[in-house]
Amino acid sequence: MRPSNRTAAQTRPITITRNFTGHAEGSVLVEFGETKVLCTASFTEGVPRFLKGQGQGWVTAEYGMLPRSTHSRMDREAARGKQSGRTQEIQRLIGRSLRACVDMKALGENTIVIDCDVIQADGGTRTASITGACVALVDALNFARSKGIIKTNPLKFLIAAVSVGIYKGEAISDLEYLEDSEAGTDMNVIMTETGKMIEVQGTAEGEPFSHEELLEMLELAKNSIREIVDVQKTALN
Amino acid sequence: MRPSNRTAAQTRPITITRNFTGHAEGSVLVEFGETKVLCTASFTEGVPRFLKGQGQGWVTAEYGMLPRSTHSRMDREAARGKQSGRTQEIQRLIGRSLRACVDMKALGENTIVIDCDVIQADGGTRTASITGACVALVDALNFARSKGIIKTNPLKFLIAAVSVGIYKGEAISDLEYLEDSEAGTDMNVIMTETGKMIEVQGTAEGEPFSHEELLEMLELAKNSIREIVDVQKTALN
Amino acid sequence: MRPSNRTAAQTRPITITRNFTGHAEGSVLVEFGETKVLCTASFTEGVPRFLKGQGQGWVTAEYGMLPRSTHSRMDREAARGKQSGRTQEIQRLIGRSLRACVDMKALGENTIVIDCDVIQADGGTRTASITGACVALVDALNFARSKGIIKTNPLKFLIAAVSVGIYKGEAISDLEYLEDSEAGTDMNVIMTETGKMIEVQGTAEGEPFSHEELLEMLELAKNSIREIVDVQKTALN
Amino acid sequence: MRPSNRTAAQTRPITITRNFTGHAEGSVLVEFGETKVLCTASFTEGVPRFLKGQGQGWVTAEYGMLPRSTHSRMDREAARGKQSGRTQEIQRLIGRSLRACVDMKALGENTIVIDCDVIQADGGTRTASITGACVALVDALNFARSKGIIKTNPLKFLIAAVSVGIYKGEAISDLEYLEDSEAGTDMNVIMTETGKMIEVQGTAEGEPFSHEELLEMLELAKNSIREIVDVQKTALN
Amino acid sequence: MRPSNRTAAQTRPITITRNFTGHAEGSVLVEFGETKVLCTASFTEGVPRFLKGQGQGWVTAEYGMLPRSTHSRMDREAARGKQSGRTQEIQRLIGRSLRACVDMKALGENTIVIDCDVIQADGGTRTASITGACVALVDALNFARSKGIIKTNPLKFLIAAVSVGIYKGEAISDLEYLEDSEAGTDMNVIMTETGKMIEVQGTAEGEPFSHEELLEMLELAKNSIREIVDVQKTALN
Amino acid sequence: MRPSNRTAAQTRPITITRNFTGHAEGSVLVEFGETKVLCTASFTEGVPRFLKGQGQGWVTAEYGMLPRSTHSRMDREAARGKQSGRTQEIQRLIGRSLRACVDMKALGENTIVIDCDVIQADGGTRTASITGACVALVDALNFARSKGIIKTNPLKFLIAAVSVGIYKGEAISDLEYLEDSEAGTDMNVIMTETGKMIEVQGTAEGEPFSHEELLEMLELAKNSIREIVDVQKTALN
Repeated sequence: MRPSNRTAAQTRPITITRNFTGHAEGSVLVEFGETKVLCTASFTEGVPRFLKGQGQGWVTAEYGMLPRSTHSRMDREAARGKQSGRTQEIQRLIGRSLRACVDMKALGENTIVIDCDVIQADGGTRTASITGACVALVDALNFARSKGIIKTNPLKFLIAAVSVGIYKGEAISDLEYLEDSEAGTDMNVIMTETGKMIEVQGTAEGEPFSHEELLEMLELAKNSIREIVDVQKTALN
Repeated sequence: MRPSNRTAAQTRPITITRNFTGHAEGSVLVEFGETKVLCTASFTEGVPRFLKGQGQGWVTAEYGMLPRSTHSRMDREAARGKQSGRTQEIQRLIGRSLRACVDMKALGENTIVIDCDVIQADGGTRTASITGACVALVDALNFARSKGIIKTNPLKFLIAAVSVGIYKGEAISDLEYLEDSEAGTDMNVIMTETGKMIEVQGTAEGEPFSHEELLEMLELAKNSIREIVDVQKTALN
Repeated sequence: MRPSNRTAAQTRPITITRNFTGHAEGSVLVEFGETKVLCTASFTEGVPRFLKGQGQGWVTAEYGMLPRSTHSRMDREAARGKQSGRTQEIQRLIGRSLRACVDMKALGENTIVIDCDVIQADGGTRTASITGACVALVDALNFARSKGIIKTNPLKFLIAAVSVGIYKGEAISDLEYLEDSEAGTDMNVIMTETGKMIEVQGTAEGEPFSHEELLEMLELAKNSIREIVDVQKTALN
Repeated sequence: MRPSNRTAAQTRPITITRNFTGHAEGSVLVEFGETKVLCTASFTEGVPRFLKGQGQGWVTAEYGMLPRSTHSRMDREAARGKQSGRTQEIQRLIGRSLRACVDMKALGENTIVIDCDVIQADGGTRTASITGACVALVDALNFARSKGIIKTNPLKFLIAAVSVGIYKGEAISDLEYLEDSEAGTDMNVIMTETGKMIEVQGTAEGEPFSHEELLEMLELAKNSIREIVDVQKTALN
Repeated sequence: MRPSNRTAAQTRPITITRNFTGHAEGSVLVEFGETKVLCTASFTEGVPRFLKGQGQGWVTAEYGMLPRSTHSRMDREAARGKQSGRTQEIQRLIGRSLRACVDMKALGENTIVIDCDVIQADGGTRTASITGACVALVDALNFARSKGIIKTNPLKFLIAAVSVGIYKGEAISDLEYLEDSEAGTDMNVIMTETGKMIEVQGTAEGEPFSHEELLEMLELAKNSIREIVDVQKTALN
Repeated sequence: MRPSNRTAAQTRPITITRNFTGHAEGSVLVEFGETKVLCTASFTEGVPRFLKGQGQGWVTAEYGMLPRSTHSRMDREAARGKQSGRTQEIQRLIGRSLRACVDMKALGENTIVIDCDVIQADGGTRTASITGACVALVDALNFARSKGIIKTNPLKFLIAAVSVGIYKGEAISDLEYLEDSEAGTDMNVIMTETGKMIEVQGTAEGEPFSHEELLEMLELAKNSIREIVDVQKTALN
């Protein structure tokens, strides 16, 4: 039924490559099939003005797509002079999710900026971004600990994300572009490594969805995220 | 337990005033307690360029807060020269939700622009906006039918929205600002008048939430939305 | 002769509602007939950088129109990314006029920001804004005095404003939209409660106007403003 | 009494140099003492979209100050990315005034853009701009007639402008910067060559002004404008 | 003498990987040592409005750096809302150079947009970009020929680029970041495959340079470019 | 052969008028034939934040064209809300060149801002700007020395600039607009008063150019710049 002949519950091949570029404290290329996102985590001492003197850190995120990461070329946001609403929505989601897994007191007055730049898009860029960014974050935290800038590990738990949806009337996991563009419902789920929920965003693109469909999608997401966390852990070892 | 002595399941007093201003085809003041939003629906013939000649209509939304709708004054977005990420996220949500309840073919090549402007904010402005905007939309559609511009009713169903959350460890409905700013989890739910889901957005502001908490929140939302739809229907009669 | 059957010297019904919203230190809904403007005055301690340490305060104003306050929908300035020249011209006028009635030394190093947001427009929004803003300003000053932040009353005098013009060859007062759009000359007059002039802006929209017409318009303005100041005083008692 | 030893009614030396630059259809350097403004009028066939097919023309204006036209350097508006409110207010005034002296039907579907760029500022740049721009406009109209693009003369009358004010308690004409920065009241007056009024903008910078002061200022303005029109006419012959 | 122990004339290892991403008609990863740039060429039918109906094509370029391609994180230009002067200067250079190697008549009314996005920066990003973009351009032209959209080959010649400079008093080729930041003179040279010049930009960062130094740098550039063209040709076969 | 009947090596008449406007510390009108640029140098104490406390000064430049300095009117950059890539490229070039002739330590923590505003354009505006700006810079430095703000002369040498190119197959100097728009190659050369190079920017607009052509153009530039420096020196005495 699926264009890739995957089963409903089956994710695409997921790979995580650490140290993909050389300058960032954390630099990860994450691939969910043909979706490829470069996630970097930049650690700097100090916090934005609104947090100064409060003894706590800050984590924020920015997201972008290379103009030709998509089937037809998208306008470059830097040239248009503003980020689209979609971009802002996604980077707010990434930042919020990653803040949830960091103990800001333990981070101290330090800032981590996450950059997720989509090199190639085939659906699920926001969930791939969060999955890769979490690994880059861990690397940046380890960098800071190795330098003695922070003493204790601020990481509360790993998080990972997957998109699920209702496609041709059935719940499926990890939608690729072809599926995404036809899906009646699309849901992004972000969970901790122990299966608790960080964010759930379900949208009826076509018909409204039922409580039962919601439960089915959540079940798929839970299982996929468990697998994805394994990929993260393997990459980190 | 709640600052307002409401029960966990109890919404604030909800009122919907139609024809609040005179120029718009639909103009509704919606109040969820102290949260007051002016929702107008502007009907115009014609569609944006990307839809021309396809025999279907368009519904979009914009959202704003008056600078002093909040406790301390916010910068005016028009003066700062851009809309915040939060604003864009909310207006995308409003537009997407309202598009879900309109049959675009039946609308024909006509456009409805929804404006939701917050006069006074006390939590839940996005769910109040959607609730009021749906009524303004109905009025704009009725205007167009009375003028003979559209022949059949494009409305598929009413939608309404409410925010629910985990506050002091317990699921509650229709959070006001004091509750919202302390809630561990915040979830916005948009449903049709028959209880099907249009959008579910749950966010762990503090601790991750469990599957059970998600179910409890959904149950509260479902019941509150049923009541809110009754308020909409009463206002429309 | 006038669409509303008013006499040449007759203003529309003018009402001033204080405490229209709850958060602002001064919050006034001013209505000149169908023109309705929400004027808030936000009092904050401190002054902008260019005034620091000079022992004096600052008063400034911003103006906006809700997109559907007008007959056909106007673009939202926040979405377009800039305020129009008209908007800037009006908010500069409002700010300049209100600074004229405040003793900045007595205000001390405090700032009052006036926001005038047009809910519904039917001509004369700038003069209605100034009239309502002055009352909101008084409320904000009284708030600061009641809190002990300022010791003496910085208010030098009340100001009020009205538009006058030449319509069908005759001078009339308080033009509504239908009159405004046909008037050959349009003049906005702002006066103190004792009839001295703060600002006079007369513009020949069609034919140039004569010295005699100027004098006639000023005479009408003076009388109308006297009445409007009475409405302000009644509202303040 | 005046820094320049002028009498109250005396303007600065006023000169108008036509054909100051080579490319524009009208190009005038206007000098009011040390205030020097380059005014060009660009004639192009065609009108903006909102006027197409209505058989009438368009006149508009833009204004700018060179960054070091002033005592201390001002930010370049092009670099800051927006025009100030003051700039917009002035260019709206210039455009409105010049539209008043053109018969748009006689102009046909052609556009004249006026650019007023301040080379050196010493008070009264907006009134100098209008005075010079009117001459540049005449040259551009004559250019179009000589090319046969327009048949009849669209010019209804010449206009000229001057600033007057209350300085040290006395009404004076054509304020230079030192006077302007201390004046209690500042009024810009734009009149036709026959002494009718196009625009009157009086502002109480310090104390409110009286009806008598208004009349005195208008009388000075009328006389000065008569002289300035003579300078325009001499330049045009 | 050089940090990398290269000889003065020696370039870094240069690699060109075609088909690096999947959607673009041409997609090349070019590496000059640690400098890595993704160059895509997007072919679309049609031309911008200013060229319509002239029977010729258009080639343009955009350039960007990923925020953490550099040692310390740079602001994201999309978030700041504008491209820096440096970015604009570079993308103008890339576009101009590539237009020089295309016969616009043979291209027909088609457009090629080049995107050069720096994944990792270590000096010479603009010359690497031009070198890689030329290969991506060839791929896009071949795509269009294979589809029958263009009949004859519009490519006039290959171009390649290298930076040369005066470092510690000596002329060297292909500066890496450490060298670039200390070089007294920096020169970017773009040549055709037959050694003719497309663009020469030499800048004295420290001391002015002599005619002899200019000649030495040009000689180095010529030889390096000959080698780089070989790498291009090998990649294209 | 040349439209102006000049010989290949002959520049246009070049004049430099100091003290062209009154407020700036250096104010120069430079004319290369019909190209006229007003160059001002504004001296202020203090440096931008990134240089504070380093005991050195800063020199920067901005460039603009009056909208009707050109044959047909250009959009005003302040109104469009951004500077074009061409403008930024030119002002970066001017600033970089002038920084090369100032000893920043001797300048102390002071800033000089150069503004080059094109009054009339006929080719070569960037080279005329640099030539005039250098004289304005000298005046601003002399101002600061006469005020005792700086002790020693920070000027390392004068610089001047000229454009050269290949026109109808022959190298010519100081291209005017008609030549520039047809030239196959265009090269801007900036040299010190002793003939060393500050910047060389050669661009093949049409055909690539040869090494020999480069040398011919440089020879012309060297001779013309020698003459231009003489004009600068005469103006400064």
